[in-house]
Amino acid sequence: MIADFKDWARSRQVRIETSLQTLLPSTNVAPERLHDAMRYCVLGGGKRVRPLLAFAAGDLSNADEERVTIAAAAVELIHAYSLVHDDLPCMDNDVLRRGKPTCHVEYDEATALLVGDSLQSLAFQLMAEYRLADAPQTQLDMIKRLAQAAGSRGMAGGQAIDLSSVGKMLSLPELEFMHIHKTGALIRAAVMLGACCGNSLNENQLTSLDHFAKCIGLAFQVVDDVLDAEATTATLGKTAGKDADNNKPTYVSILGGGRARELAEELRRDAYQSLEGFGPMAARLRQVTDFIIQREF
Amino acid sequence: MIADFKDWARSRQVRIETSLQTLLPSTNVAPERLHDAMRYCVLGGGKRVRPLLAFAAGDLSNADEERVTIAAAAVELIHAYSLVHDDLPCMDNDVLRRGKPTCHVEYDEATALLVGDSLQSLAFQLMAEYRLADAPQTQLDMIKRLAQAAGSRGMAGGQAIDLSSVGKMLSLPELEFMHIHKTGALIRAAVMLGACCGNSLNENQLTSLDHFAKCIGLAFQVVDDVLDAEATTATLGKTAGKDADNNKPTYVSILGGGRARELAEELRRDAYQSLEGFGPMAARLRQVTDFIIQREF
Repeated sequence: MIADFKDWARSRQVRIETSLQTLLPSTNVAPERLHDAMRYCVLGGGKRVRPLLAFAAGDLSNADEERVTIAAAAVELIHAYSLVHDDLPCMDNDVLRRGKPTCHVEYDEATALLVGDSLQSLAFQLMAEYRLADAPQTQLDMIKRLAQAAGSRGMAGGQAIDLSSVGKMLSLPELEFMHIHKTGALIRAAVMLGACCGNSLNENQLTSLDHFAKCIGLAFQVVDDVLDAEATTATLGKTAGKDADNNKPTYVSILGGGRARELAEELRRDAYQSLEGFGPMAARLRQVTDFIIQREF
Repeated sequence: MIADFKDWARSRQVRIETSLQTLLPSTNVAPERLHDAMRYCVLGGGKRVRPLLAFAAGDLSNADEERVTIAAAAVELIHAYSLVHDDLPCMDNDVLRRGKPTCHVEYDEATALLVGDSLQSLAFQLMAEYRLADAPQTQLDMIKRLAQAAGSRGMAGGQAIDLSSVGKMLSLPELEFMHIHKTGALIRAAVMLGACCGNSLNENQLTSLDHFAKCIGLAFQVVDDVLDAEATTATLGKTAGKDADNNKPTYVSILGGGRARELAEELRRDAYQSLEGFGPMAARLRQVTDFIIQREF
């Protein structure tokens, strides 16, 4: 089963990488340097967790893989843009990402700003350009979902809450509120968009799936905090321990490492429970869940 | 006729302002400071040229004004986001916009970054959330058009070309190439989206309209350069003469002020010609054209 999952994940990671290579503007097209920088920031790195979730959720609704690939690529472009902007000097001021210099270090700040802006536009262009659902109205609903997840009441809002929390001691609910926005919203979008590419799910199924996605989004962040606290920069591929250095509250700083690990396990059980109604169709989602909780980088 | 146009323009400016007030997130919703900053950057200022173009283009296809209002608001949000990012220290480093401190001066750089990011997301959310055309597929095409206009082969790409041209002596075709991207793409989108909200236009009509929009987009920039060279900061509401100070090529620096004024007139004639086939339905578009060429701020 685990070997099978690794093969499946690897093939989907290759698929999303190949698609992103094609979907991103060529470096031969003006403005060449901007396009070069966009490709630098998106290609050849990352665990592609959100695309894996989209593919696994697509299994629930027998979704066409070509469609899921586009939706997954759009989500990944939004994720990539957020990393580029998050690394800027006025935000986290980070110099290392996925084992390489960050965009503003490799290019310059203005280019990094425009790379992020352009990646966001490209994500919505893809969502509108390709056929992703049988009914165009479903596709409009998907675009709305992605836009909400990315915007001020989603990911970008989470970044703002994160910034304002530096140096503060947050309560657990406050920390959860931040992460539901900052990382959770886009992870939920990945799951829901993957499922929306296929046959319609009923209201109960959509509610269960959304709850699953919420659990997995929080679990992802809890594990991230544990890894950040434990790992070294070399194994992590990005600057380790920076949240503690930046005086940012984390699950580890609030709960301690042991309790944080327990919380991740509780969230896994909750996530599993929300998938019960789907039976064997949810096998891949369970595997991706395990992958997210057990990962070591 | 001119009094009539002023009334029409004022009523549409009020309409778009009122809508933006409703469509932007309330400052009572978390994250409050981000939402406050978004409203600060969008509301209460600007000539709303792009919305006026959208409304006037909507006349060509008997478009419902409610629909045009949403499309126009989305275009204006993209425009507003571009100004916020353009004013950042790593770009033009400007402190004054529409007679007020720029976003990063009034708030801070990180907030300005997130304001721009969030305004872009909100624009696409509106385009997907409201009914803008009879057929959902038409609406998907409109979203694609807006995304292309905003992205690396449109507005954001134009910004990149602009940055790389600082200190260079561009040829007239190179300058035109930059502006077709930087300001032209979004102005074209405003015109085309306004028209797409109504009855379908045929291929010939769409081509004529696109040519009109291209002329008007360039004319807008030529007049901007003339005004920037001639005006004072007080009348302009933003820092005057900054392009010359930044050693940026402009139509005035390349052609001289007199020839630049002539070019604007030529573009007006060309724009008028492309509207000939539309007859009286294009009356408003002709008036907005005159407004853009003759404006003094």
